[in-house]
Amino acid sequence: MTLFEAIKERYSYRGEFKPNPVSREDLTKILEAGLAAPSGGNAQTTYLIGVDDPELIKSMSAILNKTSTVTAPAAVVVISHPKPVYKDMCFNIQDYSAAIENVLLAAVDLGYASCWIEGEITADPVRQKAYAELLGVPEGFNVVCFLPIGVPVSEGKRAVHRPFEERASFNRFTFTI
Amino acid sequence: MTLFEAIKERYSYRGEFKPNPVSREDLTKILEAGLAAPSGGNAQTTYLIGVDDPELIKSMSAILNKTSTVTAPAAVVVISHPKPVYKDMCFNIQDYSAAIENVLLAAVDLGYASCWIEGEITADPVRQKAYAELLGVPEGFNVVCFLPIGVPVSEGKRAVHRPFEERASFNRFTFTI
Repeated sequence: MTLFEAIKERYSYRGEFKPNPVSREDLTKILEAGLAAPSGGNAQTTYLIGVDDPELIKSMSAILNKTSTVTAPAAVVVISHPKPVYKDMCFNIQDYSAAIENVLLAAVDLGYASCWIEGEITADPVRQKAYAELLGVPEGFNVVCFLPIGVPVSEGKRAVHRPFEERASFNRFTFTI
Repeated sequence: MTLFEAIKERYSYRGEFKPNPVSREDLTKILEAGLAAPSGGNAQTTYLIGVDDPELIKSMSAILNKTSTVTAPAAVVVISHPKPVYKDMCFNIQDYSAAIENVLLAAVDLGYASCWIEGEITADPVRQKAYAELLGVPEGFNVVCFLPIGVPVSEGKRAVHRPFEERASFNRFTFTI
């Protein structure tokens, strides 16, 4: 798939998945894509866990209270290690978000669908801690995102984007909100 | 270029640029790629300004105190409009970071190089305000990133990434830091 095709094809899929497995080879490619993203000051604050253990997927879905993700044959869990890199500024959110975008694009390229599930974990310290315990994530590292990976059962509903002219312009901010 | 080629080829280029122009068509494709990124709650908090006015590039480079970016024939300026979307959480940093990754990949695909310049703007309120004034960005919208776009004069130095095994694992957090 070309880059532009992958960018165009990606969308947040919230449905159930087919039982087709995600091979360890595909999961590795997806993780490598995530790790190839840039990071502020090259601090590489993002860690990725590829999950293909059905019991883990089941437990993580139960914590999220989601019936759709339990059908995912695989997932990527994103872990962030905040540390200041420039004038006491941390760029760990930027780092992991760029990595997640690469993960989502790589998943699409390989024929899978996914969805960026973050707030449902990070807004809830109980869930976040439960994830950390399940995966053995130590203090100082934050579980920030769960990305189910699998072949979608059917085409999901795509989010509608406002038109180009309302979000992009040339040489001047021209938007009225 | 395939998605995986673009991901592999992308790196932070900090050198000077050739005088080859970036066509409005290419710049539009790059902006469209950025806007196609997901956003938390589909809030679409990211706005992009494509810059191809040489005087603006010159002024923005002077504010950054950079001699390399002044040679860039074009740039993308990223503007963020923070607003809470889930339990009072804002995802605007995540939103613009995913958009930036798409912009960087699209630039590479079209034969250009770029670099994510953020902290040098956002850590300095004077610079951030100067950018906002130059581009007519109103209160409530933050200029967060400057991405020079152009054909690199020569291959730059790539950041070294730690090996896969130190940043990715399967089914368990296995890293020792």
